[in-house]
Amino acid sequence: MQIRTDLAMESREIAHGISGIAVHSRKRGAIEETHVRIETEEAARALEKAPGTYVTLEHPALALCPAEERAEMARAIAEALRKLLPPSGDLLAVGLGNRYMTADALGSRVLEDLLVTRHLRDISGESLRGRLRGVCAVAPGVLGVTGLETAEVVQGIVEHVRPAAVVAIDALAARESSRICTTIQITDTGIRPGSGVGNHRAGLTRETLGIPVIALGVPMVVYASVIARDALALLLEHIGMNENDHIQAMDSLIGELTCQGLGELVVTPREVDELVGKVSRIIADGLNLAFQPRLSEAEIQLLSHDGP
Amino acid sequence: MQIRTDLAMESREIAHGISGIAVHSRKRGAIEETHVRIETEEAARALEKAPGTYVTLEHPALALCPAEERAEMARAIAEALRKLLPPSGDLLAVGLGNRYMTADALGSRVLEDLLVTRHLRDISGESLRGRLRGVCAVAPGVLGVTGLETAEVVQGIVEHVRPAAVVAIDALAARESSRICTTIQITDTGIRPGSGVGNHRAGLTRETLGIPVIALGVPMVVYASVIARDALALLLEHIGMNENDHIQAMDSLIGELTCQGLGELVVTPREVDELVGKVSRIIADGLNLAFQPRLSEAEIQLLSHDGP
Amino acid sequence: MQIRTDLAMESREIAHGISGIAVHSRKRGAIEETHVRIETEEAARALEKAPGTYVTLEHPALALCPAEERAEMARAIAEALRKLLPPSGDLLAVGLGNRYMTADALGSRVLEDLLVTRHLRDISGESLRGRLRGVCAVAPGVLGVTGLETAEVVQGIVEHVRPAAVVAIDALAARESSRICTTIQITDTGIRPGSGVGNHRAGLTRETLGIPVIALGVPMVVYASVIARDALALLLEHIGMNENDHIQAMDSLIGELTCQGLGELVVTPREVDELVGKVSRIIADGLNLAFQPRLSEAEIQLLSHDGP
Amino acid sequence: MQIRTDLAMESREIAHGISGIAVHSRKRGAIEETHVRIETEEAARALEKAPGTYVTLEHPALALCPAEERAEMARAIAEALRKLLPPSGDLLAVGLGNRYMTADALGSRVLEDLLVTRHLRDISGESLRGRLRGVCAVAPGVLGVTGLETAEVVQGIVEHVRPAAVVAIDALAARESSRICTTIQITDTGIRPGSGVGNHRAGLTRETLGIPVIALGVPMVVYASVIARDALALLLEHIGMNENDHIQAMDSLIGELTCQGLGELVVTPREVDELVGKVSRIIADGLNLAFQPRLSEAEIQLLSHDGP
Repeated sequence: MQIRTDLAMESREIAHGISGIAVHSRKRGAIEETHVRIETEEAARALEKAPGTYVTLEHPALALCPAEERAEMARAIAEALRKLLPPSGDLLAVGLGNRYMTADALGSRVLEDLLVTRHLRDISGESLRGRLRGVCAVAPGVLGVTGLETAEVVQGIVEHVRPAAVVAIDALAARESSRICTTIQITDTGIRPGSGVGNHRAGLTRETLGIPVIALGVPMVVYASVIARDALALLLEHIGMNENDHIQAMDSLIGELTCQGLGELVVTPREVDELVGKVSRIIADGLNLAFQPRLSEAEIQLLSHDGP
Repeated sequence: MQIRTDLAMESREIAHGISGIAVHSRKRGAIEETHVRIETEEAARALEKAPGTYVTLEHPALALCPAEERAEMARAIAEALRKLLPPSGDLLAVGLGNRYMTADALGSRVLEDLLVTRHLRDISGESLRGRLRGVCAVAPGVLGVTGLETAEVVQGIVEHVRPAAVVAIDALAARESSRICTTIQITDTGIRPGSGVGNHRAGLTRETLGIPVIALGVPMVVYASVIARDALALLLEHIGMNENDHIQAMDSLIGELTCQGLGELVVTPREVDELVGKVSRIIADGLNLAFQPRLSEAEIQLLSHDGP
Repeated sequence: MQIRTDLAMESREIAHGISGIAVHSRKRGAIEETHVRIETEEAARALEKAPGTYVTLEHPALALCPAEERAEMARAIAEALRKLLPPSGDLLAVGLGNRYMTADALGSRVLEDLLVTRHLRDISGESLRGRLRGVCAVAPGVLGVTGLETAEVVQGIVEHVRPAAVVAIDALAARESSRICTTIQITDTGIRPGSGVGNHRAGLTRETLGIPVIALGVPMVVYASVIARDALALLLEHIGMNENDHIQAMDSLIGELTCQGLGELVVTPREVDELVGKVSRIIADGLNLAFQPRLSEAEIQLLSHDGP
Repeated sequence: MQIRTDLAMESREIAHGISGIAVHSRKRGAIEETHVRIETEEAARALEKAPGTYVTLEHPALALCPAEERAEMARAIAEALRKLLPPSGDLLAVGLGNRYMTADALGSRVLEDLLVTRHLRDISGESLRGRLRGVCAVAPGVLGVTGLETAEVVQGIVEHVRPAAVVAIDALAARESSRICTTIQITDTGIRPGSGVGNHRAGLTRETLGIPVIALGVPMVVYASVIARDALALLLEHIGMNENDHIQAMDSLIGELTCQGLGELVVTPREVDELVGKVSRIIADGLNLAFQPRLSEAEIQLLSHDGP
């Protein structure tokens, strides 16, 4: 079908009828939580996703909902992350993507509100002593790292800093435009080459880094070919034809449009910059809660916005 | 058809058969130049564009072409502008759009390379004295102006500074994705409310400001509904149906997709940030040549990149 | 003595024995509050300050003190401002200074955390309706305004927007380095030409704008000649000479040093960027409290950091 | 004397009469070139500088001189660097300092104009193939690296990228305010802990990185205690006392002033942001010439400002 998505839950919708996939979902207040577990290599091939666990958290109006629902989402993120994080040791947060391309800036913007503590443990006052987990952060796609692959920079830092795990934050491509800035995916499979919004993501995985790599991603774009495909399906339905009878025709039409330049086009909300800002803040709150279980929510708010 | 475009040449393609429109075009090296003159109110209504002159300069690979072809485009911009500028008096350049939204940042980025001279005329050295035309610039959409309408800021400045003309630079929406970052439109009709990429452009026109307002724009996005429409037309062609026989069906389908949220989505190249940077530089070179006819190209290069 | 200071309380210390100056001070928790009232033209000439009221709020470790003391300072700022603000009508906040020069960035940085409401009054939800005072803001020294005088931009906006008052925020020069980032001066005399850190401040006063202009400033630098002068005075004391007997010698020495280039040098803490960030936040909190008396502190926190 | 300077040529002026130091200087057009060679451990201790070569290039009005003299300085930088660079292998440029503190931003600003080529060698067109030396760059002090020591980041990258040498660019502290933005020091001794404008510079040397480390620095500040000391010396001279007879008294006075807070204050030109921009450009031109000996000056200009 060649409709690319970075969300395992969407891959599953497309490739239904495959065995080796366990799915369960539940509703928690305004948030829909879906667990997809890809258990076999065969399922992994069919879904074009690595075997492992994918947790999806959805809120239909995430960026614009009331403060209390945003706090609820931050707590749901923290809970999902905690199950995947090693119990102790420093953590390295990696903000992927290009800081200067709005739809790809999620990773680096999350880091702006992250509570970074690795350099503070020894100098922090008595009230915090012994309660801070060491967190450091790097966003290789901000100005200041050029001519270097993200994977080279992260590997070098991992070998020197020896964190217990990496948490990578990334902007994703989805299948449905309604998922943009409303869905958060958390997975223990790391970052796979070719995923994300930018076109040169290298892999950051347990195999390449030697430690657990947890990836947290949010859809920011849909490929333009998806819009075209949806329009075709709607038309076929309208004129009483069965979509499945014309899959080949549709695929060749989409292929034609893609060759005409559509392949490099992405669809994004006009107000994506504002949405990225809101969602980044929610994710940073979630990471801070997950990373610092010995601090209260109020302490985290104070530290992350006013500095220690 | 309700397919919005800010390019008069595209409006004309859609609304053919209307009288009161004069069009002529010519090829100059790699650049295709088209003049559209909307001469009657009736034509203006049909095209949803104000009466006046629209010059379009096209290069199929503008952002990525060799330096010499970019210089050629800068000279073509300068020539088109000079015909519309008053012969003397200060000029105010207005960079429209949101600096922090990549596809809407064109206006403010052009200003970064503009040769601003109004504050220099008296202090500049002997070699430049008497040869600089006064130019000042404002980009109301950069951080630093909030709670104010662009039109309020520009009107206030115009009344105090009394320039001979305003030149407004803006990011546009087009009908064809191939025009993104390859086409430059220059018009003496100013900025009309509702045009441009951002959704709240106010009008900047001779009627509101009392002086000539020349607008220079470059398409940066296509609305997602256009992609859907093109896919539908291709499918109809493919299955042997005449597009015109199904215009109503298509319109209602597009309307349906738009209601589902497509209306707020824009399509843009994934690498739009890089393209904006390149095109901004070409436009700034063109503005500098047009604004400073008594300086050589070499002098302008030196002044605009090294500062006087 | 030619030691320049923008603080009226320091001018007074230097020029003691002059009549026409009323001073009273009081201690409020950790904050020292001083009111200087310059009542006559003679006093104004002696102090090189315009006649009017100057309120100074001091905390010896303002940028680094606990959150509760910072909140106390924000409330003290709000109280001092409220006495000077007109009871109703829109307000225009003007952030002076150069955003890209750390020691001069205070004005524009305060605006980043200011609650700007003028464009929201009609679209805000029921809970806020009728409770927001209209506030708009402009920082002419951020990129985006070039070739224009600050006074031209502000006058133009004032005439179009018709606010009830202007509140201008500025970085100041002081006499004592210990006042850097620890002292806040609020005055109803506006901004006088030649004040502030940058060297081209134009005047923004009731005379030029036709409405009350309240200036809030914080010392960010001390001129290098002050350091030299203090060293000399200390040496004279050390070798048992009376400073006043050698004022002429000292003045000529300072003059000599100034001619050697010292005059253009400013002294600033090495960590000034961090200090500016902290102090800007306190001031923005104070402005928000003063400008929005019908909102609670909690509502302001929520609105200014999460957006309405 | 406890007057800190990062310039070997100033250390030498202070500590004259020490053996083991070879100095020679020459005038080249507007540029004064001085070579200081510290040859013995004894000399190193006396000067508080590591043994090795220090080349100083001085132009009394570097930031403001005509374009041709700036080009001359870029060539002088290139010539001095080439003598210290290994003949082949990739190069890693490290921009030290805090991007958001004007006087410490030199390192990261130089990188903005550096021709970064390591990722281009295979994709560049035929005209450049085989002529580009691989250059990559990192500026750890830009937003995006937090909780990590610069040395950790650079060591990690060096081990993965295996460059032939590191070239580190840094803002320095000097003894004379006239050297700010007018003097460039190039040394093969790397970056020593405690040097530079920020107070936490870690060491980057051949010992810690295992490859040659060349440091290029420009004075951006003078410590405030230097200003005080100069004032005292001038006063003593004025009242007919010999400075050397009162060294102890002066030292204790300076110590007193330092304890009163002067120690953390730096002196810098008010227009330092503009000066940093100009000097950064000159240095980037010099690095590009040194790093790419098989490209012409015109090719470098084109590539570094328009992109390949």
